[in-house]
Amino acid sequence: MGNHILGTKLITQIGILVHDIEKTSEAYAQFFGVEKPEWSSTDELDKAQTEYKGKRTEARAKLAFFDMGSLQLELIEPDHNPSTWRESLDKNGEGPHHVAFVVEGMKEKIAVLERNQMPLLQTAEYSGGRYAYVDTLRDLKVIIELLENDEK
Amino acid sequence: MGNHILGTKLITQIGILVHDIEKTSEAYAQFFGVEKPEWSSTDELDKAQTEYKGKRTEARAKLAFFDMGSLQLELIEPDHNPSTWRESLDKNGEGPHHVAFVVEGMKEKIAVLERNQMPLLQTAEYSGGRYAYVDTLRDLKVIIELLENDEK
Repeated sequence: MGNHILGTKLITQIGILVHDIEKTSEAYAQFFGVEKPEWSSTDELDKAQTEYKGKRTEARAKLAFFDMGSLQLELIEPDHNPSTWRESLDKNGEGPHHVAFVVEGMKEKIAVLERNQMPLLQTAEYSGGRYAYVDTLRDLKVIIELLENDEK
Repeated sequence: MGNHILGTKLITQIGILVHDIEKTSEAYAQFFGVEKPEWSSTDELDKAQTEYKGKRTEARAKLAFFDMGSLQLELIEPDHNPSTWRESLDKNGEGPHHVAFVVEGMKEKIAVLERNQMPLLQTAEYSGGRYAYVDTLRDLKVIIELLENDEK
């Protein structure tokens, strides 16, 4: 696989799937003594260009972020369209979905991962960058998310 | 629940359950281009004083640690005695088990958590400190681990 394929081992985010983002955001806010963040929605298909397992999907999710010191904790409440979020939530219930890394040259990294039997699950654009979820479950026992941010 | 019950929101560790610590350690080492760490074993009952759901248990686990920049990633291969590790692995398969926080005054914090319907799952001693797993699944959708280190 070559050394250090991602170019980083810094986990920047843990993503947690939830059924009710309002309720779980409130629980986190109370537990950690912080203000409850407002959730935001991922962009609609035209803007996000979301693809899941190679097909365009209308899937969107509500997201809420907590700054946990060393990293960001992301709560994710997906809608019922096909997505890695919905698939994992239906299969495994609420709980951790991915750990995320900020990378450069995402396209090339995805190609290397796919050559190593780590299939691309889902991609989309967001303001200022894009993400890719990769199925590294067989080897790493967790899904990873690559985040690539445009230069400012 | 009162503000900031743990006294911290710094996640210091993610624990991941695995069936074969040798194999998954090798996969992580290759993936991140680091040396494969030797696994170590948790202490035996006499030293660890391990309790699971209020009862002493012979349960032990093999542990391997990776420094992921912002936090530590811990791979856990439990034996077949009763433990939160074995229960989660049997129920949910391989994958994330807990996120950990270093706290002070663990005993008092456990008492407050229990009063808030967050039951203590498992405790034990290790060289230089002790841990407690707390069932925060209902509210936080993940088990938390409290780590208390003795002063040096």
